[in-house]
Amino acid sequence: MVAQLEYVKRVEPLMKDMAKTHGSTFTFDHLPLQQGGSLSPVTIAYETWGTLNDTGDNVILITHALTGDSHAHDPAHPGNCKMAWWNPLIGPGRVFDTDRYFVICSNVIGSCYGSTGPTSPDPRTGRPYGMRFPVITIRDMVRAQHRLIEHLGVRHLAMVAGGSIGGQQALEWGVLYPDLMDKVVVIAATAALTAQAIAFNEVGRQAIMADPNWYCGDYWPGSGPSTGLAIARMLAMITYQSEEVMEQRFARKPVQQAMAPSPANTPELGGRFDVENYLYHQGNRLVERFDANSYLYLSRAMDLYDVSEGYPSLEFALRRLQSKLLLIGIRSDFLFPAAHVRWLAEKVRSLGGDATYIELDSPHGHDAFLKDWDQLTIALQQF
Amino acid sequence: MVAQLEYVKRVEPLMKDMAKTHGSTFTFDHLPLQQGGSLSPVTIAYETWGTLNDTGDNVILITHALTGDSHAHDPAHPGNCKMAWWNPLIGPGRVFDTDRYFVICSNVIGSCYGSTGPTSPDPRTGRPYGMRFPVITIRDMVRAQHRLIEHLGVRHLAMVAGGSIGGQQALEWGVLYPDLMDKVVVIAATAALTAQAIAFNEVGRQAIMADPNWYCGDYWPGSGPSTGLAIARMLAMITYQSEEVMEQRFARKPVQQAMAPSPANTPELGGRFDVENYLYHQGNRLVERFDANSYLYLSRAMDLYDVSEGYPSLEFALRRLQSKLLLIGIRSDFLFPAAHVRWLAEKVRSLGGDATYIELDSPHGHDAFLKDWDQLTIALQQF
Repeated sequence: MVAQLEYVKRVEPLMKDMAKTHGSTFTFDHLPLQQGGSLSPVTIAYETWGTLNDTGDNVILITHALTGDSHAHDPAHPGNCKMAWWNPLIGPGRVFDTDRYFVICSNVIGSCYGSTGPTSPDPRTGRPYGMRFPVITIRDMVRAQHRLIEHLGVRHLAMVAGGSIGGQQALEWGVLYPDLMDKVVVIAATAALTAQAIAFNEVGRQAIMADPNWYCGDYWPGSGPSTGLAIARMLAMITYQSEEVMEQRFARKPVQQAMAPSPANTPELGGRFDVENYLYHQGNRLVERFDANSYLYLSRAMDLYDVSEGYPSLEFALRRLQSKLLLIGIRSDFLFPAAHVRWLAEKVRSLGGDATYIELDSPHGHDAFLKDWDQLTIALQQF
Repeated sequence: MVAQLEYVKRVEPLMKDMAKTHGSTFTFDHLPLQQGGSLSPVTIAYETWGTLNDTGDNVILITHALTGDSHAHDPAHPGNCKMAWWNPLIGPGRVFDTDRYFVICSNVIGSCYGSTGPTSPDPRTGRPYGMRFPVITIRDMVRAQHRLIEHLGVRHLAMVAGGSIGGQQALEWGVLYPDLMDKVVVIAATAALTAQAIAFNEVGRQAIMADPNWYCGDYWPGSGPSTGLAIARMLAMITYQSEEVMEQRFARKPVQQAMAPSPANTPELGGRFDVENYLYHQGNRLVERFDANSYLYLSRAMDLYDVSEGYPSLEFALRRLQSKLLLIGIRSDFLFPAAHVRWLAEKVRSLGGDATYIELDSPHGHDAFLKDWDQLTIALQQF
């Protein structure tokens, strides 16, 4: 019991801090959706850093991952990589240089950090959409971002850059609006998810929807399927890392830190390994800051993404690319295997496109795009 | 609805068939346990094929994996690899030659196929143990098997062989009873699980224990946390395969077969991938044939196994080995990585032991030990 109290005391302030919404919002009337139907109205939460020039073309658009938000940079804490998810890459003199560029990051539709998503009121009922929210895709996210940059007076993008689902968005930008940007940076993302990655996502979703507190998505805000969401996050955290780095960090050590409650609040069977405690902790943290229905919709958008969708072939889709493309794979990533990222670069080149492939020699798995700042900086500087 | 009915019709007969218990049982009074406490009485379900010779030393002991049973061979259907889990390797003239050897396979304690486990009556109450079953380890399983072979009149083992948790048992046999056998075959198993593999197991266990029908393990036989167990199995099935073979088999194909109900019986978000349907099907199949509490205890025994446990060092434990050791790794196995299996072989050799390492060049992942019959046969014939 002491361990439990201590845990709550240490974690809660952090949770509240992370759940803050930042920046501005832009609302527009209507967004037709790739899978049919539409969303209206649509609100996009966003942040910007730096100044837009008179010609409206000194712009870098940053796109975020599954549970991310618009807070890619925190000028008040530029040295703290925990205060904003791409903080070390953004700022004066950094690779995304806010002295030269107008840097934009918006929260994707379907999310719960200020943009329209399942927690938003459904205008037909005035109550949260829940599972009446329509199926959205990476292309829908990109189309909504396009409306935002038009609203901000942007005429041309110097670069679109993102990792993971953010990388899928960056690639989609290049294919959907080929003449609108000079450069595209796709990190730890591919043309489409593997069967294995879809499978992992679906296990997580089943865990959420099996939680009796999910109520088919109609839980009250602030409550909901916290056990299921924590289990989904535990699994996702394994796929974001690698066997190698988990062995370095945890191996078979017994629990080392304050005991976190397990999602199902269950008895232990022969002790607790440190890796289990870590995953409980990560599960609990996500529950405090993220909406379960948003998790379902955004992870599904990740599965459904296929850059060739709606075109006669993959080649046809990739031939649309006009910008310079930088594809960054991560040696130890098993969610978006480096070999698939490299394959995409070679495919684009074989079709006459300008694609560069760089591989991060990192043990951190998929999460390297949020950790290996030095390697990322070098890769981006060279581009 | 039609699809659902069709699914039930096709799958149910198979389920009943798989849930059969085979063979004989042996009951003894008392088994002290590695983690403390004891189990009494203890029943072991087992099967044998071939004939024990007068000197009691023409014996091969086969050890099974997590959800396996004693039915490693089915003489009535020797050509059907679905009727018994190592059928193609066992029989007259096969690598485990029943013309020459007395082959034994027993169901591990903690399981639900005839040996004492959480579904057995607790003698203190007359009701199923449930979670009052004690924590058991691989060493406890092996000690119980030792009692069984003594009972059968076995004086010496020509070989102990198993894959996955069966491989952990085979290794433990070599270390615990070093002068009792000539050869040990460890397939797709290592000296101890990785942090990543423990993590995957724990996600599955949390899914089971989060199911409101688990009732802290006190569900009625035949009911229970079917949703949680199906989700745990979905995840486990991913870890038993590989990215490569899932891509070959499923890639991003939409559902191809009869629609299986999903564990949480949930709405679909933008269609169903074939890999998802396959995993639902696998989840449902396990629920029909396996006990959820047994799954908790046996997966935990897998986590807790460390060959060095109770010895001053890993080297000390491995120096105890006196038999010839064959370690078989699988190129695409990420649950028990081939590099770790190879490392163990090298370690044993560096300590003066007789260890051979062979790697199966298979895309099937961990499950290759239940699939790649030709490669397994060649590896075993050479040993």
